[in-house]
Amino acid sequence: MTAALPFSRKPLAQLQGHTFTDRHLGPDAGQQAAMLEALGVSRLEELIDQSVPANIRLGRDLAVADGVSEQAALAELADYAAMNVVNKSYIGQGYYNTHIPPVIARNVLENPGWYTAYTPYQPEISQGRLESLLNFQQMVMDLTGMALANASLLDEATAAAEAMALCQRGNRKSKSLQFFVDEQTHPQTLDVLSTRAEGFGFELIVAPASDIDKHQPFGALFQYPNTRGEVTDLAPLIQAAKQQGAMVAVASDLLALVLLKSPGELGADIVFGSAQRFGVPMGFGGPHAAFFAASDALKRQVPGRIIGVSIDARGETALRMAMQTREQHIRREKATSNICTAQALLANLAAFYAVYHGPEGLRAIAERTHRLTALLAKGLEQHGIKTAEHFFDTLTIAAPEGLYERALAAGCNLRRFSDNEVALSLDETTTEADLAQLFELIIGKDHGLDIAGLDASLLATDDTALPDSLRRSDAVLTHPVFNQYHSETELMRYIKRLENKDYSLVHGMIPLGSCTMKLNAAAEMMPVSWPEFANLHPFAPAEQTKGYQRLLADLERDLAEITGYDAISLQPNSGAQGEYAGLLAIRRYHEARGEAERNVCLIPASAHGTNPASAAMMNMKVVIVDCDDNGNADLDDLRTKAEAAGDRLSACMITYPSTHGVYEEGVKTLCDIVHQHGGQVYLDGANLNAQVGLTQPGLIGSDVSHLNLHKTFAIPHGGGGPGMGPIGVKAHLAPYLPGHTTQGDGTGAVSAAPFGSASILPITWMYNRMLGKSGLRAASEIAILGANYLAERLAPHYPILYRGRNKRVAHECIIDIRPLKAETGITEEDIAKRLMDYGFHAPTMSFPVPGTLMIEPTESESKVELDRFAEAMIGIRQEMDKVKQGEWPVDNNPLVRAPHTQADLVEDWDRPYSRETAVFPSQAMRTAKYWPAVNRVDNVYGDRNLVCSCPSIENYR
Amino acid sequence: MTAALPFSRKPLAQLQGHTFTDRHLGPDAGQQAAMLEALGVSRLEELIDQSVPANIRLGRDLAVADGVSEQAALAELADYAAMNVVNKSYIGQGYYNTHIPPVIARNVLENPGWYTAYTPYQPEISQGRLESLLNFQQMVMDLTGMALANASLLDEATAAAEAMALCQRGNRKSKSLQFFVDEQTHPQTLDVLSTRAEGFGFELIVAPASDIDKHQPFGALFQYPNTRGEVTDLAPLIQAAKQQGAMVAVASDLLALVLLKSPGELGADIVFGSAQRFGVPMGFGGPHAAFFAASDALKRQVPGRIIGVSIDARGETALRMAMQTREQHIRREKATSNICTAQALLANLAAFYAVYHGPEGLRAIAERTHRLTALLAKGLEQHGIKTAEHFFDTLTIAAPEGLYERALAAGCNLRRFSDNEVALSLDETTTEADLAQLFELIIGKDHGLDIAGLDASLLATDDTALPDSLRRSDAVLTHPVFNQYHSETELMRYIKRLENKDYSLVHGMIPLGSCTMKLNAAAEMMPVSWPEFANLHPFAPAEQTKGYQRLLADLERDLAEITGYDAISLQPNSGAQGEYAGLLAIRRYHEARGEAERNVCLIPASAHGTNPASAAMMNMKVVIVDCDDNGNADLDDLRTKAEAAGDRLSACMITYPSTHGVYEEGVKTLCDIVHQHGGQVYLDGANLNAQVGLTQPGLIGSDVSHLNLHKTFAIPHGGGGPGMGPIGVKAHLAPYLPGHTTQGDGTGAVSAAPFGSASILPITWMYNRMLGKSGLRAASEIAILGANYLAERLAPHYPILYRGRNKRVAHECIIDIRPLKAETGITEEDIAKRLMDYGFHAPTMSFPVPGTLMIEPTESESKVELDRFAEAMIGIRQEMDKVKQGEWPVDNNPLVRAPHTQADLVEDWDRPYSRETAVFPSQAMRTAKYWPAVNRVDNVYGDRNLVCSCPSIENYR
Repeated sequence: MTAALPFSRKPLAQLQGHTFTDRHLGPDAGQQAAMLEALGVSRLEELIDQSVPANIRLGRDLAVADGVSEQAALAELADYAAMNVVNKSYIGQGYYNTHIPPVIARNVLENPGWYTAYTPYQPEISQGRLESLLNFQQMVMDLTGMALANASLLDEATAAAEAMALCQRGNRKSKSLQFFVDEQTHPQTLDVLSTRAEGFGFELIVAPASDIDKHQPFGALFQYPNTRGEVTDLAPLIQAAKQQGAMVAVASDLLALVLLKSPGELGADIVFGSAQRFGVPMGFGGPHAAFFAASDALKRQVPGRIIGVSIDARGETALRMAMQTREQHIRREKATSNICTAQALLANLAAFYAVYHGPEGLRAIAERTHRLTALLAKGLEQHGIKTAEHFFDTLTIAAPEGLYERALAAGCNLRRFSDNEVALSLDETTTEADLAQLFELIIGKDHGLDIAGLDASLLATDDTALPDSLRRSDAVLTHPVFNQYHSETELMRYIKRLENKDYSLVHGMIPLGSCTMKLNAAAEMMPVSWPEFANLHPFAPAEQTKGYQRLLADLERDLAEITGYDAISLQPNSGAQGEYAGLLAIRRYHEARGEAERNVCLIPASAHGTNPASAAMMNMKVVIVDCDDNGNADLDDLRTKAEAAGDRLSACMITYPSTHGVYEEGVKTLCDIVHQHGGQVYLDGANLNAQVGLTQPGLIGSDVSHLNLHKTFAIPHGGGGPGMGPIGVKAHLAPYLPGHTTQGDGTGAVSAAPFGSASILPITWMYNRMLGKSGLRAASEIAILGANYLAERLAPHYPILYRGRNKRVAHECIIDIRPLKAETGITEEDIAKRLMDYGFHAPTMSFPVPGTLMIEPTESESKVELDRFAEAMIGIRQEMDKVKQGEWPVDNNPLVRAPHTQADLVEDWDRPYSRETAVFPSQAMRTAKYWPAVNRVDNVYGDRNLVCSCPSIENYR
Repeated sequence: MTAALPFSRKPLAQLQGHTFTDRHLGPDAGQQAAMLEALGVSRLEELIDQSVPANIRLGRDLAVADGVSEQAALAELADYAAMNVVNKSYIGQGYYNTHIPPVIARNVLENPGWYTAYTPYQPEISQGRLESLLNFQQMVMDLTGMALANASLLDEATAAAEAMALCQRGNRKSKSLQFFVDEQTHPQTLDVLSTRAEGFGFELIVAPASDIDKHQPFGALFQYPNTRGEVTDLAPLIQAAKQQGAMVAVASDLLALVLLKSPGELGADIVFGSAQRFGVPMGFGGPHAAFFAASDALKRQVPGRIIGVSIDARGETALRMAMQTREQHIRREKATSNICTAQALLANLAAFYAVYHGPEGLRAIAERTHRLTALLAKGLEQHGIKTAEHFFDTLTIAAPEGLYERALAAGCNLRRFSDNEVALSLDETTTEADLAQLFELIIGKDHGLDIAGLDASLLATDDTALPDSLRRSDAVLTHPVFNQYHSETELMRYIKRLENKDYSLVHGMIPLGSCTMKLNAAAEMMPVSWPEFANLHPFAPAEQTKGYQRLLADLERDLAEITGYDAISLQPNSGAQGEYAGLLAIRRYHEARGEAERNVCLIPASAHGTNPASAAMMNMKVVIVDCDDNGNADLDDLRTKAEAAGDRLSACMITYPSTHGVYEEGVKTLCDIVHQHGGQVYLDGANLNAQVGLTQPGLIGSDVSHLNLHKTFAIPHGGGGPGMGPIGVKAHLAPYLPGHTTQGDGTGAVSAAPFGSASILPITWMYNRMLGKSGLRAASEIAILGANYLAERLAPHYPILYRGRNKRVAHECIIDIRPLKAETGITEEDIAKRLMDYGFHAPTMSFPVPGTLMIEPTESESKVELDRFAEAMIGIRQEMDKVKQGEWPVDNNPLVRAPHTQADLVEDWDRPYSRETAVFPSQAMRTAKYWPAVNRVDNVYGDRNLVCSCPSIENYR
């Protein structure tokens, strides 16, 4: 008889199965050991000591709590959630209750097939979300009446800022630096406009809309309906503005536009707003998609991502992001916007909402919302309470004594203008019972109003709340996509068909050096759907948001400790916004010290293009610092340029580890030089994944950083957004963090909501809470292990461009394709596309160095997956050799014809390689093939023939 | 200027967008009109009048509430949920708290790609869940130490009943009709055994285990650990039982078996139990997967579905359900079990749980659970409270005064044996804090016990709670599948890889005549995950389950109205269980009237095979009634046979509309004949989808029916279960509905839990609530419309076998392939497999008539999808003609070589048809191809070479 298996002798407290850290990390202990062995080191600590310079090591544990299990963390967070009070919101002001259709919630928002995808830079494996984003654009174009729309911006207020900037650069005739804004625009929009105007050096004129003829600004902005809910005919105002030489932007509301004459028809050049109420929860401020549409004349200057229609190598219709050459990472300091992250996932939610409801469904929702509002107005009128003559869903009224408090007590939040004036916004979720409750609250129990009777009398007369002249007369959403998926079965299948076209983390590694595509754990995502987090209005009274406040306080505390900073702002809702907020803090700091002339920003050549773009938006003068052959910032050059700037030196923006994937040894010296010349150091947090628990930006010597929560802190990429970019600062910059109008201080606001995209912050809270101090550090360590392991495996086949001390890389590495291209004629793009045939998403292409690939495996990829990737890359290298040796022609081989599709296979085959080589280059593909939906996409064709609306069905045949 | 679009003049109450009924129904108003036109009728009512006999029409609206929106229904149900109290459960008794890993919850339980799949009768498009179910079998084999396991049964108690039956038929040497059961078996198991023994005519001996040597039964059952938590060495008992001529079944617990010597090693012939605690919520009783394992000698007699390994047409490894010829629908009255539905979705949850934790993770969970229990025992011992010497996770103790109530007040449920005795079961979720609370509750605040100190002292001594002799000595779960997916990323990808192999409702129509694959709406599924429904123990005190009680009462009320019955039992957890319960009620009714000799059951030849199987299990004599050429029961033959049976006539089992898809005109007459001879009419509810709102079983004249909630009432099929089979009865049968021990009456229990698989009942509640009276009827009407439309489109190409009045079919239709086969050599199986190439799941094959296909489109399929299906069928018919005309050889054409796979495409191609014809027979496939994972599976090979464990990795290469 065999001996019984021994029981563990560990004490109870240590007797446990897998921790969350075990789940988050890809390689288990055995795999880690094998990887270390391949690197010739015996322990993980040894590798870290070799890689990270000693003079910046933290040398202690993070003062962050120990990690807990998924269930324990969810239970703690549920306690926080329970502290939030979900009142019925009538606040409006850009945020409305909405019903997210369950089929969309479950199959898009809660489905990793959608939320773990990356930005669709590789269109061949992104056709699904590209189609959905194109639907979003078509919907916006239809409703706004404009020629072109982008695929979303961050929020309505920042979209307003982008509109202001576009007016200025689109209006070549005007020399004005004034921008006119209707004073009846949402206050948070005014705040962000004010901040951005400051950065650009514009003068903001906030005045009654009718004053437009008293000014000659480069641009004017009207809100339609305005923030008080009034609908006025914009046509004369727009005409007047144009006569004054201004371009005109209109802030509007998608649901109102279902009924209202479109701003396009009224003459607007730009139309923007929020798509939130199309099925995206308010989420205490976000994330939601802002929309942005413009006239044909502006089409090549529109900020943000635009999806366009092109063709693939077979000549078939294929979608892709249009005009990528405009993107800020390419245009750098010549960029006109630093917009990078969009709100792709949220734009997709809104697009599916429109697809599901269709024109008739949306019209019913809009009419019902308006009818309820008209009934409310009529009832109030009968009791002598006046409202505006024309409105859609919002009434601003003189408030009877104590109304606001009475409503609060009854679970209803109103918008308070003053003690004597409130506004109420109705929406898709408002019921007859709600209306009755409002009558009772406003008028009293004995209001005597019968809703059905009111309705009958309203129908008997002409509905004058929206006169004919302001109603739209054109059909919208006539494209078949909005008219065929109205049953749940059909929509579910459409969602799944699109999902299955797209490569996401559910298929395999996305080894992007420019982003960090780590695990987005299910437990991290679950709280996002909880109603206590999803259904709070961003301007709800503080006593209703105590759960969020606890969560935000925890996050600020932990992020401060992780970064070594003294204060955190959670307001910026993207990395680019964070950069802007950080530079703004620096500028205001200098100004406060009487050194307003400091406006030079030093940026190493290796920087992410967003850095110079952000600096340019702050009217800073960008000076590029050279890099040496190893990819490090050239300290001598830096010193020279800092001296040259002298007391005009404002800041130096660096990334650490550098975008070259190296821990630069001289980083502390760099900080010292900048500080010696009175400058501030901005450390871009993009690579924080290689720092957490090992070092801190604050320790390194920087003054301010933004943290991409969607990189290091597990917020999923959502197929191109949402992102979150909080900033951390040293104490001396803390007074200059963004304020917000709802917190009694609108100065420096960079986002519409005080805490940006608050409803995704639970993801990061869960990440920190479950990993805890040791897990957070382990994540950094394993990320470094993975990158070095891959570098080791690839080095015999591809030159590794940069290495740091001890020949180690940080958490990513760059392989140089240029010499191989010279030898074989095969480009980095060919490799990227061929990787699709092997079942991989390409690494980052030609950034930061043209002709290279930058690879970041992250800590969440197992050795099995890393090996599969290495073998794919080695297989590709061997294929390149076959081209070099003439076995395959340079213009007809599996690399240049990649990616291969199903359509290729069924055709006659006259290629010098087999079908099997084409589509099954590795064994893994035989059992789980991921198929690119189209062949290689022709970008040039698409940009030359710019089409950014849904193609007719015939195009697909 | 164009005129403004007019606003709706509808009153507010009617001004709405899409209702849930609009979402549930596939064809919209325009599509319905086009379908009616194709049928030559002008209104839907006209078609219904043509189809459904007037003498059975309901002629009034159902007395069911009007439907409400998804959000309103969810809000109402949330109010019910809030009435449930989720205490910490220590009740045990077969149901334990467990953590469902979030990655599994989200990607399996909450993912329509998993839950909408059908039973894997078509293995080529089911390889994903077949692999997972094979993992389940391997896990069970490993832990039980048995040669073979099935892919799940309904619950532990019915598994016990199946074990009893298998002992009897497997034990050819014994003439005994006695079955011996250890009295320390779970009470609910004893109840169900008692019911089943009555049906079979067995004598149940419930006695102390040690009494086994006093009896000579055909089988004996021991529980290990037993219901009091005691672990005893079964080897001597098993030996004794065998000496008495008995086969031995052991009820056990998977988590205990991680540590305990396996029953297989101890000599058991059969081992069964519940897999619930492997990550499946208790759900107030279910659904969960029961496991069932047996020795090699019994392998061809094991009940339920067994997944086996075979090869496909290319000789590659391919999985499929083994030995389908044993299934009850083929064996009919010769079947030895009526088991039909399994718990596939729940078995998959349990299998993924084991895959995720692996042997080491499971061992840690088991050891921790056991250590905590040992610490509890040790602490209690120090205070003079004795426990059993050997236990795993459960302690039965003398209860200090008031303990049970004190615990309740503190939010803890204990199991109460008597006022003086309680049991406590610990589990995966128990924490140190829980242990401290238990000490305080049992001993008092001043217990003075220090858990760490107790632990240290326990570790210092030998742990005697499980002596070496009872510990297992063999390694389990050594297969790679249990050892490589321990990171969340890896498991998520494995789940998705398997999902993407399987065809489900997310891909297209599953037009099964034998089941009703309608929409399983996301809003219906969401409440299943709510903790208030998921985390209740089935034997929790009634005052904690008030929300469930409300839900159950609503359901009983609505189902009674829908069926026209007087009473409903929600206990049966599958259709087959429902049949059994229904026949039992009939038997007991006859017995109560002194007519116990009534045991003849008349069954029309067209009946579902489960009917005769259930009757056989009730020891009834089955007499088959002929059908006429139109597929209707031959009333003359019925009359003759009823007369022949005379006062031995017990029942007649019919299906309505018949399984031939026809509303038989003579059904009322049939009922009259049966009643005239003193018999009862059992109406199989399988086709209730064609009755709801139009007629009622009770109105037609039947006495009892089961209702497949997973057919008509939107519970998803889960890839082969769960199901739910409540029964409805007329008042005279109501006293004979199943009882339950927890309700003070164990007689007639058919399931382990009083309300069967209670946690999926919210799905049906939501379905009824959202559709409401008009939506429920519309569902039936559109189902009839869809079937007649398809029949119309297919009739020119395929003979429609049966039609009813006015040449209409009901909600399904049968096409006859036999004449076409005679002409072309192409079989119904070839058509079924070829449909996969067209992107469809096959209709039901050769049931109820060999050589036919039965098609049921359901109300949820749009006209677009119906047309796509019709065009596929027409395309196939044209392909058959090409074979007939000799264009393609009969043994080498796209039909006999279907389905086609990716592997086919990359090989040399020497077929008389093109690759394109093979895989892109329709346009839809070009943009959204669903790929069968393997070529046609060889069933004969698999049954001859029966392998039901995970193949080695090499097999896949």
